[in-house]
Amino acid sequence: MKEPHILSAFDRDLEAVQAHVLRMGGLVEQALLDAAEALETRDEALAQKVQAGDKAIDALEEQINEECARLLALRAPAAGDLRTVLSVMRIAAALERSGDYAKNLAKRSLVLSNMSPLGGTSSSILRMARTVVLRLKEALDAYIAHDVAVAQDVRLRDKEVDQMYNSLFRELLTHMMEDPRNIGAAMHLHFIAKNIERVGDHATSIAEQVIYLSTGDMPADERPKAELISGTDTAAGR
Amino acid sequence: MKEPHILSAFDRDLEAVQAHVLRMGGLVEQALLDAAEALETRDEALAQKVQAGDKAIDALEEQINEECARLLALRAPAAGDLRTVLSVMRIAAALERSGDYAKNLAKRSLVLSNMSPLGGTSSSILRMARTVVLRLKEALDAYIAHDVAVAQDVRLRDKEVDQMYNSLFRELLTHMMEDPRNIGAAMHLHFIAKNIERVGDHATSIAEQVIYLSTGDMPADERPKAELISGTDTAAGR
Repeated sequence: MKEPHILSAFDRDLEAVQAHVLRMGGLVEQALLDAAEALETRDEALAQKVQAGDKAIDALEEQINEECARLLALRAPAAGDLRTVLSVMRIAAALERSGDYAKNLAKRSLVLSNMSPLGGTSSSILRMARTVVLRLKEALDAYIAHDVAVAQDVRLRDKEVDQMYNSLFRELLTHMMEDPRNIGAAMHLHFIAKNIERVGDHATSIAEQVIYLSTGDMPADERPKAELISGTDTAAGR
Repeated sequence: MKEPHILSAFDRDLEAVQAHVLRMGGLVEQALLDAAEALETRDEALAQKVQAGDKAIDALEEQINEECARLLALRAPAAGDLRTVLSVMRIAAALERSGDYAKNLAKRSLVLSNMSPLGGTSSSILRMARTVVLRLKEALDAYIAHDVAVAQDVRLRDKEVDQMYNSLFRELLTHMMEDPRNIGAAMHLHFIAKNIERVGDHATSIAEQVIYLSTGDMPADERPKAELISGTDTAAGR
């Protein structure tokens, strides 16, 4: 058993790290929105800003990992607190990968800005990005508030993002079937949609950390996924 | 400064964790080879075995993270050793994601086994998987042997995998242009190729951890990437 002053020191340190996690979350959310906006409006400057901004997100993850390691080393926390610190590192890793997807979206938007647009697909992607960013916000809020109910809700609603992905995929398939010259652009848009769906999976994994922290177990049941379209896709890349 | 007996206790603990990392690496390598084999030979039983096996890989990562956290908590290691433990966790995370890609490859191979094959694309994917598994092995060996030269080599040779991906992508594009009925299968094969390329990136990130541990810095220069095909792809998803 740890003495009270050790516990409170741990909590103080933890709060400092969590502040950095929230800052990281804010940067990732903005990067995703900006990248999707850059795609929709063909704003190359905004896309380049997103690409340049990823370094700051990566640096924050590095810093959070070092802080967690020091926290463990200095405070020697017991099982429950160990779990908390591990969760912080997992959440930072999920945010870092989400930032990578935003950066990749920005890169692809620069290539796509030189190709003819495929109907309303880029608006669909912007809507999808906004939905995913909302899930990410909710997951981080649930983490800070230890709100298992909100976390459960984030987990269940990932299905909506999967459905947006599936309908966008059908749209892209039609464009490709119609005219092979659309294939190049459609492939990029498909990767973008897939990566946004993966960010949704990361939001879910953050929500699952909240559940894990409160219950000590990861949700046993497989997370509900939208019905997969015959032969188009089989899982969110995982 | 730590006393000798603490240091050796740390090293003993670290060796135990590293043994689990190597076991995890072995499972991931086999899963990738089996999944690519299942795709090439349309072996549904083998594909199902790979899917079922992913749970064991995830459990090992979980265990490694807990062990690392306890190690930090019990041994309160100094800066250099902290870095080592963080690297172990990062390597385990890279292996876990690589395992996810093997699982996804297996899932897609089950869908593809009901579609007509596209030329020699599945053999190209098997070759690509074997190359990536070799890189993964080399990266883990370099980690255990603290061999920066091998790590640098792994990092530089990721370019080969990128080139294999690019030529496979061209092949898939041709099949899609030729006959729109090939698009469904081609999309799956493209995701598979992309995911194998991502495993190559994880092998590189493991190699970079080896360099980081020996030099204290991540390699500053951007890792060399194969030339990107005009408008087909802009980065290895990151």
